[in-house]
Amino acid sequence: MFDKENAVIGFIGTGVMGRSMAGHLLKAGYRVLVYNRTKAKAGDLIDAGAVWKDSVAAAASEAQGVITMVGFPSDVEEVYLGKDGIVAHSRPGSYLIDMTTSSPALAVEIYSKARAKGVYSLDAPVSGGDVGARNAALTIMVGGDREAFEAVEPILKIMGANIILQGGPGAGQHTKMCNQIAIATTMIGVCEAMAYARKAGLDPSRVLQSIGAGAAGSWSLSNLAPRMMGGDFAPGFYVKHFIKDMKIALEAAAEMGLSAPGLTLSKELYDELAAAGENDSGTQALYKLFCG
Amino acid sequence: MFDKENAVIGFIGTGVMGRSMAGHLLKAGYRVLVYNRTKAKAGDLIDAGAVWKDSVAAAASEAQGVITMVGFPSDVEEVYLGKDGIVAHSRPGSYLIDMTTSSPALAVEIYSKARAKGVYSLDAPVSGGDVGARNAALTIMVGGDREAFEAVEPILKIMGANIILQGGPGAGQHTKMCNQIAIATTMIGVCEAMAYARKAGLDPSRVLQSIGAGAAGSWSLSNLAPRMMGGDFAPGFYVKHFIKDMKIALEAAAEMGLSAPGLTLSKELYDELAAAGENDSGTQALYKLFCG
Repeated sequence: MFDKENAVIGFIGTGVMGRSMAGHLLKAGYRVLVYNRTKAKAGDLIDAGAVWKDSVAAAASEAQGVITMVGFPSDVEEVYLGKDGIVAHSRPGSYLIDMTTSSPALAVEIYSKARAKGVYSLDAPVSGGDVGARNAALTIMVGGDREAFEAVEPILKIMGANIILQGGPGAGQHTKMCNQIAIATTMIGVCEAMAYARKAGLDPSRVLQSIGAGAAGSWSLSNLAPRMMGGDFAPGFYVKHFIKDMKIALEAAAEMGLSAPGLTLSKELYDELAAAGENDSGTQALYKLFCG
Repeated sequence: MFDKENAVIGFIGTGVMGRSMAGHLLKAGYRVLVYNRTKAKAGDLIDAGAVWKDSVAAAASEAQGVITMVGFPSDVEEVYLGKDGIVAHSRPGSYLIDMTTSSPALAVEIYSKARAKGVYSLDAPVSGGDVGARNAALTIMVGGDREAFEAVEPILKIMGANIILQGGPGAGQHTKMCNQIAIATTMIGVCEAMAYARKAGLDPSRVLQSIGAGAAGSWSLSNLAPRMMGGDFAPGFYVKHFIKDMKIALEAAAEMGLSAPGLTLSKELYDELAAAGENDSGTQALYKLFCG
């Protein structure tokens, strides 16, 4: 489907992640139409050959494939389901791929409304962050129909390295929620362990040499504990975005009747952190609550 | 100090861990005296050349080095500080090494009382479990004086692979507490993520392919989530021992004025699990609370 000669891809949302991802598509030879709320953030892509469109509708109506990487579920809803949105303006037979981390229920709704118009829809959130986006090494967790997945897989492979169809509509978002849930409480443990180390008068970096490689080991302990210890609270992954994700996960868990006391606690702690003015810090700033 | 020709090592506690550890010392050529509450559990070691002693005092009074690997802090206290205990019966100039996971405050007390008798004392708890003990690959976290550490380091190297002096008396136990604290909340996240996956109708093993290697990754996710999914709740690491460790950590945290809501939650959940009859299961049985 998506041969480079003929396929036009609309790319909505050219923030830190979207910019790198759309850049890979351009470099691979695809024709890319871009739209972003703030045009300036699409400047580099336009310089690299992307075509600017003045609205979501304009980008969607000319594309065989539309990729979105926006902010919050409310943005996803507006961009897809608003009267000037993608579903209303997409071409029959086209493919919609939402790569935003968003609500599984909303992904199902978009899928249904797209399908009613003869349009394919996939939810395909990612992990790997800005570095993964830059290196085309993202993990992409996909939900939707296999036929649609296989049609767009060549495009996904240009942006990611670990691309898995997890199930039907919403399954990509659900998988991303599993990812965020595992991170949520792990972060508490890393902060408490490091705060304990400091309070006990230990050398935290020496402690990491003892505990980092064994049963206490985690990506967060290896990558974020050293930043906490060094007073580096720059994002990586923003507190405000993590709170958004945990809110989605808690809502989905509640709908499924799943008790999630660890996730609940983590959301409470991060809300407290945000209220203390740390919304734009990296998630490792949680350490400040324990050892501020 | 501990040359194989002349050194006699007393080994108190020949359970699953101690048996392997003392066995390595024997194989390395040391003379080993053993005592255990249940003599039968020392049978293999006696067959391999260890000399049985009928009491802690008898084992301690003839040894240049005494190693203990017992159960609970109350056992450590009795074995070291009781009137028939190690400190009362150890030889001046000898070395005491408690490898049990126990209370940092108790380690400091033993150190002081030993020192008053001219005896060296180290706290040296381990991680790596029965497999690490069997393969002489334990991580050993040591607290005490450097001089004593260096004197016994050749012995520790026979049992472990990652041996670090973490600080003064109690620092080994404190480091082990950091280890257990990091595990405690990570386990909640792993259980909640896997329970979410199942409730959402995802294939948990496929989910692990998406989330296992990235920012959600942890030793627990890689090693224990598959056991949860397979219904394998055999110990590895016993629920009852983990509860013991969390209790020590919570007490130490309280003494230091450290708030540890994640650890508190984990202890509550594991207490609930124990009350449901899972004391002798592996720690991955926590999953049953979420998806029983």
